[in-house]
Amino acid sequence: MGVPRPRPKPNATPDDLAFGINACTMALKTGYAKSLLYFGGTRNDRVLELVQEAEAAGVRTEEVEGFRLDQLTGEGVHQGVLVRLRAVEPVDLRQVARDSGKASLIVVLDRVTDPQNLGAVLRTSVAVGVDAIVLPLRRGALLTPGVHRASAGLSFIAPVAAPQNLAMAIRTLKEANYWVVAAAAGEGAEPATSFDWPAKTVLVMGSEGEGISHLLLEVSDFQVELPMDQRVESLNVGVAAGVLSYLWRRQWPFPPAS
Amino acid sequence: MGVPRPRPKPNATPDDLAFGINACTMALKTGYAKSLLYFGGTRNDRVLELVQEAEAAGVRTEEVEGFRLDQLTGEGVHQGVLVRLRAVEPVDLRQVARDSGKASLIVVLDRVTDPQNLGAVLRTSVAVGVDAIVLPLRRGALLTPGVHRASAGLSFIAPVAAPQNLAMAIRTLKEANYWVVAAAAGEGAEPATSFDWPAKTVLVMGSEGEGISHLLLEVSDFQVELPMDQRVESLNVGVAAGVLSYLWRRQWPFPPAS
Repeated sequence: MGVPRPRPKPNATPDDLAFGINACTMALKTGYAKSLLYFGGTRNDRVLELVQEAEAAGVRTEEVEGFRLDQLTGEGVHQGVLVRLRAVEPVDLRQVARDSGKASLIVVLDRVTDPQNLGAVLRTSVAVGVDAIVLPLRRGALLTPGVHRASAGLSFIAPVAAPQNLAMAIRTLKEANYWVVAAAAGEGAEPATSFDWPAKTVLVMGSEGEGISHLLLEVSDFQVELPMDQRVESLNVGVAAGVLSYLWRRQWPFPPAS
Repeated sequence: MGVPRPRPKPNATPDDLAFGINACTMALKTGYAKSLLYFGGTRNDRVLELVQEAEAAGVRTEEVEGFRLDQLTGEGVHQGVLVRLRAVEPVDLRQVARDSGKASLIVVLDRVTDPQNLGAVLRTSVAVGVDAIVLPLRRGALLTPGVHRASAGLSFIAPVAAPQNLAMAIRTLKEANYWVVAAAAGEGAEPATSFDWPAKTVLVMGSEGEGISHLLLEVSDFQVELPMDQRVESLNVGVAAGVLSYLWRRQWPFPPAS
């Protein structure tokens, strides 16, 4: 389709920050924190614990005034703490495909730019044990502070891939014996609740407003939709991704703990 | 448990309002709109269409300045339109239990007060076709403007019950042959993905921070948990409710359209 895609809005805060207690905790745990700024007058013990953890881990800490955190986070809900981040390393899809076991789920997000939704998908995807979350490479931030926050910091654990071209990435996965399942209503769509999920599934999710681009629908092997009351047009994409991922996981359970 | 429950925060806006295009559309469609206020200088055609729809339906409309909408919504994202609401009528659980078919799902929300989460659960619950969503009766608003917005206006369709006492409401449903399934991790919890869901299920969801109260756990027949990567503490309650509801719906499909 010839419709121009809207540019994602520029972010209010720089890309290399995370703030709030959960996000900063995860950034420290995962080694992504380069330095930590905190409001010295905080009454929140968790902030002071984070300062100690940072110092024990050799991460530089700095006490600042509250308004400085307000400025740096664009008046965000920082809870008195902020970290500067190393660049989050994207995963390589060819390697993921090579290393994956018999059952493997990869989630592709097409045009999902809302930080709240993106964060929710990352959090659920880590929980359900996906092997990769694939986002289109964008100018500017891949994972913004809002995404870190909405994912409760699980964005630092999530195996994110950011290829130049989503359709080509999907073709690569098809060559590695993945089947492509697009979440899209309409003719030919099977009910997701009775769908026989392939062991190696690439699940493609679109945005609520625009759906999945024509190009990605064309490379899909199946279309599935969640059965729903006709008065409801669509589900929130974070909820839909969670439901579909867990329907896959139901059929392909976690291997028993060894 | 003797821990005092925190009071929900007072709402920034009065209870009898909804704003934003989606929420106002649904309020009009469902007959809950008493009157409609709009910003005359809007460039959004949907707002002007809503004004026409309101007038055709005999709902009083009034053109106002933008700052008036900002005031009334507490600087909310009103998109130039606001409606005043009739009180949303709660459903009667005894009657729901009496009228329900062979398969019936009822969702109980314990301590879920965040408008974003509450709205997400209402939206998904309508989609999945639950017979009721049960919330504790609270002083002040049952469904706030933030809930209407987060549910994309499906709060006006959702069959909400608001009993004085959740535990007593659950006992009533047990007497009507419902089984009570609590979403709670821990000893004795079965994996939700392999759980054999009863046809008549009451699904009890707690808040992310506090979980389900002891009293409600005691009246539960089963506990289920979603299998997940151990690095993840919990899922967002809106996502978890969606996943569990659809796992029930997978086992008890919508009756074929007649």
